[in-house]
Amino acid sequence: MKKFINAIDTLLDESLLGFSKAHADIIQLNTQPHFVRRINPPKPGKVALISGGGSGHEPLHIGFVGHGMLDAACPGQIFTSPTPDQMLAAVQAVENGGGVLFIVKNYAGDVMNFEIVGEMLECQNATVLVSDDVALPKAHSTGRRGVAGTLIVEKIVGAAAEKGADLATCKTLGDKVNNATASMGVALSSCTVPALGKPTFNISDTEMEMGVGIHGERGRETLKLSSATDIVEHLASIIDEELKPKKGQPVLLHVNGFGATPLMELYLIYDLAAKFWEKHGITIARSLVGNYTTSIDMAGCSITLSVLDEELLKLWDAPVHTAALRWGC
Amino acid sequence: MKKFINAIDTLLDESLLGFSKAHADIIQLNTQPHFVRRINPPKPGKVALISGGGSGHEPLHIGFVGHGMLDAACPGQIFTSPTPDQMLAAVQAVENGGGVLFIVKNYAGDVMNFEIVGEMLECQNATVLVSDDVALPKAHSTGRRGVAGTLIVEKIVGAAAEKGADLATCKTLGDKVNNATASMGVALSSCTVPALGKPTFNISDTEMEMGVGIHGERGRETLKLSSATDIVEHLASIIDEELKPKKGQPVLLHVNGFGATPLMELYLIYDLAAKFWEKHGITIARSLVGNYTTSIDMAGCSITLSVLDEELLKLWDAPVHTAALRWGC
Repeated sequence: MKKFINAIDTLLDESLLGFSKAHADIIQLNTQPHFVRRINPPKPGKVALISGGGSGHEPLHIGFVGHGMLDAACPGQIFTSPTPDQMLAAVQAVENGGGVLFIVKNYAGDVMNFEIVGEMLECQNATVLVSDDVALPKAHSTGRRGVAGTLIVEKIVGAAAEKGADLATCKTLGDKVNNATASMGVALSSCTVPALGKPTFNISDTEMEMGVGIHGERGRETLKLSSATDIVEHLASIIDEELKPKKGQPVLLHVNGFGATPLMELYLIYDLAAKFWEKHGITIARSLVGNYTTSIDMAGCSITLSVLDEELLKLWDAPVHTAALRWGC
Repeated sequence: MKKFINAIDTLLDESLLGFSKAHADIIQLNTQPHFVRRINPPKPGKVALISGGGSGHEPLHIGFVGHGMLDAACPGQIFTSPTPDQMLAAVQAVENGGGVLFIVKNYAGDVMNFEIVGEMLECQNATVLVSDDVALPKAHSTGRRGVAGTLIVEKIVGAAAEKGADLATCKTLGDKVNNATASMGVALSSCTVPALGKPTFNISDTEMEMGVGIHGERGRETLKLSSATDIVEHLASIIDEELKPKKGQPVLLHVNGFGATPLMELYLIYDLAAKFWEKHGITIARSLVGNYTTSIDMAGCSITLSVLDEELLKLWDAPVHTAALRWGC
């Protein structure tokens, strides 16, 4: 394992410290327990948006704390759910009379811990469960996983909350975005979890892991490595079959890198995915290409499509000022 | 070699096409010959800033075309200088009476081709040669290489040009930023150039390449992999020795990933580098952490320090709207 670290036990703490120093104009870090919050407290009555999950997916979620997006994020240890005390402390820090909306990727540990906290809270609260990964069947025993579509939920609900939408409206909107969003990923290499010190899975030089999860979970099938066009056709067909966007409908196309795949390849994937949907008469109205929901050092990428309407387009375009997404302010 | 490609010969074209589609609100792509330019032509009399170089360093330079930064960028083939016809076509497209400033990383091919073009032009033109890589001695036969500091030159001169600075002022400013900037990198793995199909250099699991260049050029020495603290101490000491920032002087600290190193590690490196200079009484006034000047899929990072003054701080903070850097607009 070759990484820039001092010790496995201090990696997360040191990294969060660096993050908080580099973005001190946007966020502040709380330690004991760990959470990242906006430097400015939310306006009275604003719904507080809180997300969180295992670390190793940076910039998700800490990079999305700031104006127009999250109020706080709770980073767990690498690929490990944050704990209820982190979530409680984050709520205490940012809830300001408007209630709390948790945005939670659908993994058993995350769901359980956010549920525990929801039940303990005296303030109004609700949860949007993100489950955009169509690699697993809809009827999978634990449901579908939340992956790169999460940031789209966070951005759009974040914009609505900033404009004064109430908790019920934010919750409905979050569910709507989740239902309108589908993702699927493919890996060329495994990631290496520092505490494990070796790749999560083995894959030969001529194979790819289709439908891989963002923790290196095996996906649908291990396939022979094929051309980028074939790979995109494979991923996009499954997404398209799920969402069935109509001709002329505006969509957001997001190509997400898992960490070790160069931008040059991500843009190539974007070109092919755009062509796929344009061929079907779909309008690519917005796009996002880059490393946003990563899997430590995995080589690979995912494609996410969100079917938008005028309301969602406006909320996507609304100002955002976070470490990883910034426009309009 | 595991990459998302269709064919080595079409990789760059397809990637540029994806880039131009994803950022059609900011730039447009010219093919035959290749260059990327802003969608809006420069105001009459504005100095046109043009950069370029081999591809494989994305987002550098195409990701820095837009308001407040470059007017055009000429992407060469991977790790290969762009050709004079690309540069000439770019000049023709964006020169609007204010003359042209070329911002050129110091590599023999780039320097030669930009020089040829400069001599052919009838309009006023000048060149800023970027040579921020302190891994090589100042007296090196071909001079020092231009690396991650290039974007700082492009950002600061871009802001000045936007405000109406003339060619001579922009040239002087660019040289000033270059002289106030020093970088040094370290690699944990080699990059793999697609046309070659195998790593540029071999490195064992317990070694790192100190002073590596952004094309995988061997650096100062191959060392045993050490702790992040030791690595930062090594890089920062050499940079500090070169720039000798004074106590209380504001600096910009830029930690740049080479492509395959997770953001979590880059923030850890940032924390350690910030501590190094804070210990010396230096004020980290601005920061930038992320993958900006990459080496395809190399694991590694570089540290760049720029000593700023009030003028440079203001220009760094000025609005910028490009694919890869965006604030204030």
